[in-house]
Amino acid sequence: MKTTDSQYYQCLYFTSNALARKVEKLAIESWKQVELSPSHGYVLMAVLEEPGVQPSRLSDEMQLTPSTITRLLE
Amino acid sequence: MKTTDSQYYQCLYFTSNALARKVEKLAIESWKQVELSPSHGYVLMAVLEEPGVQPSRLSDEMQLTPSTITRLLE
Repeated sequence: MKTTDSQYYQCLYFTSNALARKVEKLAIESWKQVELSPSHGYVLMAVLEEPGVQPSRLSDEMQLTPSTITRLLE
Repeated sequence: MKTTDSQYYQCLYFTSNALARKVEKLAIESWKQVELSPSHGYVLMAVLEEPGVQPSRLSDEMQLTPSTITRLLE
């Protein structure tokens, strides 16, 4: 079934999550080539862009909670 | 920082995930009133709409993997 065929296709909660899951799947596929998850890849790009960047700044830039950033950096 | 101020704001992976997280937050807040998570609420709505619905049909309608549906129903 296509997302637009679902009875919830006019619901932002449903569609935003369905879109994010589909894009996540594509991103996982792409990053697999370098054996990184998309999130780890993005953190790595951000750190390469700005060496020594503070976790709080990463959290802000990536719009992730500080605890998610901590988990990714470990 | 606003999502549009991030260096990744033109990246679909970043924006779709940021949007989904923001909408999820709103949904969690709304469903809290009836002590359900948004996902449980949606499964419940789908089952009320179609009593006796098969998990495979739910998975299709909600665009979730069968294992996520099983986890939600338990």
